[in-house]
Amino acid sequence: MEKIIECVPNFSASDEKTLKALTRCFEKHRVLLGYESDIDHNRAVITAAGKPQAVLKALIETVGVAVKHIDLNAHKGAHPRMGAVDVIPFVPIKNITKEEAVLISKKAAQKISQKYGIPVFLYAHSASSPNRVQLSDIRRGGFENMAAKMQSPEWKPDFGPNIPHKTAGVAACGVRDFLVAFNINLDTNDLRIAKKIASSIRESNGGIKGLKALGLELKSKNIVQVSMNITNTKSTSFFEIYQTVKKKARNFGVEIKNSELVGLAPMRILSSSIKEALKFDSFDDDKILEYLLWDRH
Amino acid sequence: MEKIIECVPNFSASDEKTLKALTRCFEKHRVLLGYESDIDHNRAVITAAGKPQAVLKALIETVGVAVKHIDLNAHKGAHPRMGAVDVIPFVPIKNITKEEAVLISKKAAQKISQKYGIPVFLYAHSASSPNRVQLSDIRRGGFENMAAKMQSPEWKPDFGPNIPHKTAGVAACGVRDFLVAFNINLDTNDLRIAKKIASSIRESNGGIKGLKALGLELKSKNIVQVSMNITNTKSTSFFEIYQTVKKKARNFGVEIKNSELVGLAPMRILSSSIKEALKFDSFDDDKILEYLLWDRH
Repeated sequence: MEKIIECVPNFSASDEKTLKALTRCFEKHRVLLGYESDIDHNRAVITAAGKPQAVLKALIETVGVAVKHIDLNAHKGAHPRMGAVDVIPFVPIKNITKEEAVLISKKAAQKISQKYGIPVFLYAHSASSPNRVQLSDIRRGGFENMAAKMQSPEWKPDFGPNIPHKTAGVAACGVRDFLVAFNINLDTNDLRIAKKIASSIRESNGGIKGLKALGLELKSKNIVQVSMNITNTKSTSFFEIYQTVKKKARNFGVEIKNSELVGLAPMRILSSSIKEALKFDSFDDDKILEYLLWDRH
Repeated sequence: MEKIIECVPNFSASDEKTLKALTRCFEKHRVLLGYESDIDHNRAVITAAGKPQAVLKALIETVGVAVKHIDLNAHKGAHPRMGAVDVIPFVPIKNITKEEAVLISKKAAQKISQKYGIPVFLYAHSASSPNRVQLSDIRRGGFENMAAKMQSPEWKPDFGPNIPHKTAGVAACGVRDFLVAFNINLDTNDLRIAKKIASSIRESNGGIKGLKALGLELKSKNIVQVSMNITNTKSTSFFEIYQTVKKKARNFGVEIKNSELVGLAPMRILSSSIKEALKFDSFDDDKILEYLLWDRH
């Protein structure tokens, strides 16, 4: 029973050269599953999965590459960030408990702080206190205000020095549940519409369960985007979100241009979307051949 | 690199007791992935996959169970059929060529005819002549007319005697591409509507590529069904078919009640459906975590 852990580090960069350098280590250790970058977000997301030892080794090497290539003092982008390696989420995938994964995330945080002098906050299931569970609470203020924020004992990092790394800032590292980054692009450049839709659908405003949403500008495409994180992949379907955004956009006289997935999706969110889109009476992962075989072997 | 073959035998029975007896052998050999039965079709479909040797062994034993439990002289159902074990499709899944799979299907056909005295026709990629490629050509006339049909030298079986087994009829066995059995139930009991829709969407009438469709009655539910086989799983999406049927049904003032999948679906048809339903610019199997890991390990 091979243990499989996923690691989805987010880097504050989107240029081809940096991306290539970052993915190389994961490739070398044969744990790279995919990667994406977005020039408007100015952010790259790498998805790796495999044996914990191999993933950990590749990650530590990659952080070194990021420190070398990325200078946050010169960084601009639509996506909020506080570090060159902004966040390092681990997700237990197979034959591995949440507790085992937390130990791995702590090991990663410790090594990164020791080797590169980057302060690391543990977040999500790895958090050392309740105010560090939410990444947005840790990240609030961004790279620019992190030095001042860290003066407070409340924001002393879990590992590493009390001041941000000069060019790489700080990082958050921890175990979280599967998260799906799903963006819907609107056929308008009116940011207020994207913001209004995002605000009305997010869980914290009584919207869709497990949904976080932001309205962002995609300047290079002259359109706006409802940028979403789905943390409840068990009961939420892409299709439900899509239909909701479509309806709300139409109230503003706007159509959906297209959608995109950043990183990978777990089978279960596809199953629930298919179930809803096609009015299947019952439909689950166990109707999918490859999933069944994967789960068994 | 473990070889994996799929086998999806269709049996002319739907009662709980027979189904249980049929699935037992596949379970025993640890190759059972799923099964369904439908009382109106009076048909059961078992999906098995695993190492060729194990699948073959389980299949041969199961055919023995079917011969013991099913008497086609007493059989009635909406689905066309010619045998107790009506058709035995093999599908190469992983690390196995079409040619290797054809050899396995011939071995199965030979053993079934020898052991149980059932005439077996090779069909699809295993067919010995062009008029046996289509299952519908072999099956035309059904169990009731098979004895007369087999008088003709053109319909001498590939294995076994020249006359149907008295209670188990004849069987077809062969390698085919992945096939998805997808049914859409309409909220009406007017069979003409299901038949008209089926006729207009099937490929042979210029409809959707790779689609076969029949209009059937589901008497137990007092509704009708567009019963479909999708043979082109690479370029056809569930969602496209669903939207087409929905539109055509509405022209008759009828709504879709629900849908169902018989057996399993391959990842790729889910990906294409998701892509279309959610207007993804790009979306493929390699966006799905478990698929990537399965494909790699």
